[in-house]
Amino acid sequence: MYKPAKRMQQMSPFYVMDLLARAKQLEQSGRSIIHMEVGEPDFPTPRLMVEAASKALANAQIKYTPAAGLFELRERITEHYWQQYQLKISVQRVFVTPGASGALMLAMAMLVDADDQILLPDPCYPCNRNFIRLFDGRPVLIPVDGSSNYQITAQLLQHHWNEATRGIIVASPSNPTGTMLSGEQLQAVITSVDGLNGWIVSDEIYHGLVYETTAHSALEFSDQVLVINSFSKYFGMTGWRLGWLVVPEALIESAEKLAQNLFISASSIAQAAAIHAFDTDNRQLLEQRRLDFHKRRDFLYHTLQEFGFRIENKPQGAFYLYAGCEKFTNDSDAFASDLLEKAGVAVTPGRDFGEHQPSTHLRFAYTTSLEKLRSGAERIQHFIAGM
Amino acid sequence: MYKPAKRMQQMSPFYVMDLLARAKQLEQSGRSIIHMEVGEPDFPTPRLMVEAASKALANAQIKYTPAAGLFELRERITEHYWQQYQLKISVQRVFVTPGASGALMLAMAMLVDADDQILLPDPCYPCNRNFIRLFDGRPVLIPVDGSSNYQITAQLLQHHWNEATRGIIVASPSNPTGTMLSGEQLQAVITSVDGLNGWIVSDEIYHGLVYETTAHSALEFSDQVLVINSFSKYFGMTGWRLGWLVVPEALIESAEKLAQNLFISASSIAQAAAIHAFDTDNRQLLEQRRLDFHKRRDFLYHTLQEFGFRIENKPQGAFYLYAGCEKFTNDSDAFASDLLEKAGVAVTPGRDFGEHQPSTHLRFAYTTSLEKLRSGAERIQHFIAGM
Repeated sequence: MYKPAKRMQQMSPFYVMDLLARAKQLEQSGRSIIHMEVGEPDFPTPRLMVEAASKALANAQIKYTPAAGLFELRERITEHYWQQYQLKISVQRVFVTPGASGALMLAMAMLVDADDQILLPDPCYPCNRNFIRLFDGRPVLIPVDGSSNYQITAQLLQHHWNEATRGIIVASPSNPTGTMLSGEQLQAVITSVDGLNGWIVSDEIYHGLVYETTAHSALEFSDQVLVINSFSKYFGMTGWRLGWLVVPEALIESAEKLAQNLFISASSIAQAAAIHAFDTDNRQLLEQRRLDFHKRRDFLYHTLQEFGFRIENKPQGAFYLYAGCEKFTNDSDAFASDLLEKAGVAVTPGRDFGEHQPSTHLRFAYTTSLEKLRSGAERIQHFIAGM
Repeated sequence: MYKPAKRMQQMSPFYVMDLLARAKQLEQSGRSIIHMEVGEPDFPTPRLMVEAASKALANAQIKYTPAAGLFELRERITEHYWQQYQLKISVQRVFVTPGASGALMLAMAMLVDADDQILLPDPCYPCNRNFIRLFDGRPVLIPVDGSSNYQITAQLLQHHWNEATRGIIVASPSNPTGTMLSGEQLQAVITSVDGLNGWIVSDEIYHGLVYETTAHSALEFSDQVLVINSFSKYFGMTGWRLGWLVVPEALIESAEKLAQNLFISASSIAQAAAIHAFDTDNRQLLEQRRLDFHKRRDFLYHTLQEFGFRIENKPQGAFYLYAGCEKFTNDSDAFASDLLEKAGVAVTPGRDFGEHQPSTHLRFAYTTSLEKLRSGAERIQHFIAGM
């Protein structure tokens, strides 16, 4: 009979989906649920961008754009690199994509042949390894912990590099840990990979959501990197599906061919909105939101530790805490399920993020208000006390 | 040094892009250009759908949806299958995707292992073969002509089937030819492929844009097919990027995993708009537009033949005519380029659609008004007279 392609056996689903479905079910039955599992900011898309989209709608000619995106938007993105990082990036290197998902798709399609190995930190964003498997490549998960700020170091990557290794994906700030590579660390990784003739893919989708430090782009250290970014997280445009990819000059032609064939183009309305993402007024609003996230992080970081969760490294960005729960359980799946059923708090068990001690880790997202986080914390405290 | 993945050498760009860029350049310099190259309806997105999107925007909570799409939209799509084809399709089999491009991506990712062969008619939609190459599969182009209405027959596919063949992509109506498979022909193809234990992918994105006949869905004849459809063409939503895929029961789990990992979800605003695509008022408007396309087809079909272009089969759907130009040239690229430069009419040379006699074929799209088509026809007539 019919069989799907072999890769389908390797692809993993989002395990948290069952928990999400159960949370929704409980809510529909009248239970109050505090959501600390959601990787999506609670803030609405900023007014300026919504207004730009409304104007585009009123015009009603919502047509295909060029495959690489509206020229004006690509220009704004290059201006952003100048303002934020003092980098001159040519417009031709910028590809506007359907979410960072589309950027990751282009990057992996361009870099991964069958059986190629790509190094990843473990834990990391669940889709990374599945995008590698999509092209029959092999994700090599490098266990990382607090000793390296949950990031791959130059030493670690040298240790895991072999003849089949083609490159590495780094993410700073990281999902699920919120930890970052310093400028020196990022530079050291890039220098190492360059020396090994490998590719570097730098996931920078949480840039902007950084606290008490500065985010460095891989583009500061090399023109040979692929940089993935997104309008979803910092700019508050999740459901619009818009991101971008910066490629080295040598990959422009490949990225163009792929974007034409795989996407035709990204959403026109989303692009019309994103043109205003970098406006001064908008950036001021986003800065306010960043300060809110900062407060939430501080609250949750301290509170969870007081409760007995282990957080080795203070997260420096994104909106996640990755906490060791070994004091309470060796089965984070069961713990998360119980926490939902008995206390009405949804969190994400480690399983989705890799194979390195997932059963003693939970991801807490601070994508809900401080008030709700406080209420969630009380419930967690009560739940733990009753264990 | 750095090399892209091997597949990149196999992937072809859209050759028409250079011609498009030149057409834009000429327009910017003040020349009038008649566009008969564009695969995008000239009509704006219908008012009802734009209003639904405006409401979603006003709400401003544009968040991720479930990976398979909003349940309400998936329900509407199943109702459409009942109303249009008297078919009962379960909601679980319907996946809402970022354009038909996203549907094709899911289908090929699920079906194509390295070196697998997929049969395609030649000429056909350019991206089909590149999606197969994306997964290191091998597109097998079956030359088709007027003798089979530019479609693959059961006989042809039996002839080209071998041990490495995994399946076939059919498209009815077809791009670039506008020709269709009758119900009997479609059924015969499906029965043959079923007998060979292969997969059938049926591209039905031009359903609705059909003249003087009825479009049959592959789902009428089998539950084991994958059906690709789109809100772009008939529903007038190109730039919104929304399509759907219907899968057999056995592939639901695979499609779900893939959609989660590759897309997160399709555009929320586009989904909010598409919920109203099937409303009675909207369908009435779309029927008016269909009648306009019908008139345009009739005009262009007769006029181009009068001029000496060869159109073996009257196109029954979509908005394209695929015309032999051997009376005028054996170099359709040069002809199209000259036609643009000297007469200000843009058409698409055969090269993008395959390897079967591309140099003596041109695709004419009737995606512009009858008035402009008349003006374009005059220019073509004058151009030919002066050759």
